[in-house]
Amino acid sequence: MPDVRVILVEPKNEGNVGAVARAMKNFDATELVLVKPCRLGDEARKRAMHGVDILNAARTARDFRAAVRGADLVVGTSGIDTASEKRFARISVTPEDLADRVAPLGGTVALVFGREDFGLLEEELLACDLLVTIPASAEYPILNLSHAAAILLYELYAARAPKRSRREASGLEKEKLHEAFASLLEVTDYPAHKRTRTKVMFRRLMGRAVPSKWEFHALMGVLQRATKRIKRFEGKR
Amino acid sequence: MPDVRVILVEPKNEGNVGAVARAMKNFDATELVLVKPCRLGDEARKRAMHGVDILNAARTARDFRAAVRGADLVVGTSGIDTASEKRFARISVTPEDLADRVAPLGGTVALVFGREDFGLLEEELLACDLLVTIPASAEYPILNLSHAAAILLYELYAARAPKRSRREASGLEKEKLHEAFASLLEVTDYPAHKRTRTKVMFRRLMGRAVPSKWEFHALMGVLQRATKRIKRFEGKR
Repeated sequence: MPDVRVILVEPKNEGNVGAVARAMKNFDATELVLVKPCRLGDEARKRAMHGVDILNAARTARDFRAAVRGADLVVGTSGIDTASEKRFARISVTPEDLADRVAPLGGTVALVFGREDFGLLEEELLACDLLVTIPASAEYPILNLSHAAAILLYELYAARAPKRSRREASGLEKEKLHEAFASLLEVTDYPAHKRTRTKVMFRRLMGRAVPSKWEFHALMGVLQRATKRIKRFEGKR
Repeated sequence: MPDVRVILVEPKNEGNVGAVARAMKNFDATELVLVKPCRLGDEARKRAMHGVDILNAARTARDFRAAVRGADLVVGTSGIDTASEKRFARISVTPEDLADRVAPLGGTVALVFGREDFGLLEEELLACDLLVTIPASAEYPILNLSHAAAILLYELYAARAPKRSRREASGLEKEKLHEAFASLLEVTDYPAHKRTRTKVMFRRLMGRAVPSKWEFHALMGVLQRATKRIKRFEGKR
C-alpha cells in the first residue's frame, strides 16, 4: 500500500479542511497539501479534532502541478460521471476499483479533491493518471468535500486491513455443531420426514451467519446440554 | 434493497445533523429519526444543503425503542471492535459485509448512530440485530458522526448500484484488437523471438485496464491505421 497524499485544490470552507484532516488521521494518511486555500482558523482546528497535527503540518502549494510533484500516481476525484465514454477525460473508476488497483502499489498516491463548488478544472482532470467517482444519487450527487475524502480514504484503508479479524470455526468444528444439532432432533423425536430439510435449513443459516470459533462452541454447548438433559429424563422414565 | 432509516441518538452538534441529512440525500436514504436531539438551527440547515427537506421532515423520538419501532433490521454502529469475541454485544461486521447482507432484503433497515462522545449505550447495543464497525486507525479510530454515516450510506448505495456502468468490449472485439497489435508487430519487423512475449505483455496490460467498448475501438483504429500506413510505404518502396 502506497503512502497517501491528500491534495485540496482551492478549498473555500475552513471547516471542510479541518474535517478532512480528521478523516486522514482516522485512516492513516498523513500528508496534506493545500493549493491556494482559504484562511485556516479556529473552525478548521476544531473540526480536525485529533487530526490537528496533520492540519498544522499541511503544506501549501502554488498550483496543481506543484502539489502533485513527486507523487507516483495522481488520482483525481470527479463528481460527474458522464454517460458518454468518448469524453475521455471523464472516464472514471469506482472507489472500490481504485482501492483494488492502488493496494498493491508502493510509493505515493495523490488523491486530488477540487473546489467545493465546481470541482477540478478540465486541465487538472487531464493531468490525472486516474479518475475516481463516488456513485451517488442522480438527484443530488454532490458530496460534501470531507465526506468524499472520508469515503475514499476509508476504501483505501479497508483494502489493506485484514479482511476478517475473527477466528472462524474450522470445517471439523462446524461438522461437530451439525452433529449436535442432528442429535437434538433425534432425542426430541423431531418428525423423521422433516429432519433432512431442517438440518439443511440450520446449515444454511450458519453458513450465512459465519459464526466465530467462540460462537460455534457456545452454540454447540447449548445444543449438547439440551440433548444430555433430555436423555437423562428419558433414562428416568 | 430495503428502505434505510437513519437514527441519531442524542446528537449534540447541529452541524453534524445537517451533514448527515446531506449524506442521506446523496445516497437515497430519506427517513431521519432523532432521539433527544440538540436544537437544530441555521448551522444544521446550512450543512444539509439540498438535504434540507430530509432535515425538515425528520421525526423526533422519545427514546431508542420508539426510534427503531417498525424497522425490520436494526443495525447499531460501534467504534469499539474489541479483540475478545466473548463480549457478545460487541461482535460486529464490516460496512462491506453489512451491505452484502442487507442488499437482498426488503422492508426497512435502521442504521443507529450513537452520541458524538460515547456512542451507543450497552443496553442500546444489545437491542440491535447486528453491529457494524468501520475499520480505522488504532491510533485514532473515532470518526466524525457524519463521516461514519456517509461511509455506511455509501456502502449500502454502492451495493445496489450496477457494478459496471461502462459497456465492456466483447471477447470477439478484444481478439480483433490483439490481431491488430500482432499485425503491427509484423509490418514493423519486430524481432520474431520477442513477439510472443510482447503480445502477452499487451494482453495483460489490456486485461488490467479493462477498457470500454469505445476505448477498444479507438485503440484498434490507431493500430490499424499505423499498419496500413506502413504497408502503403512498403508498397511504394
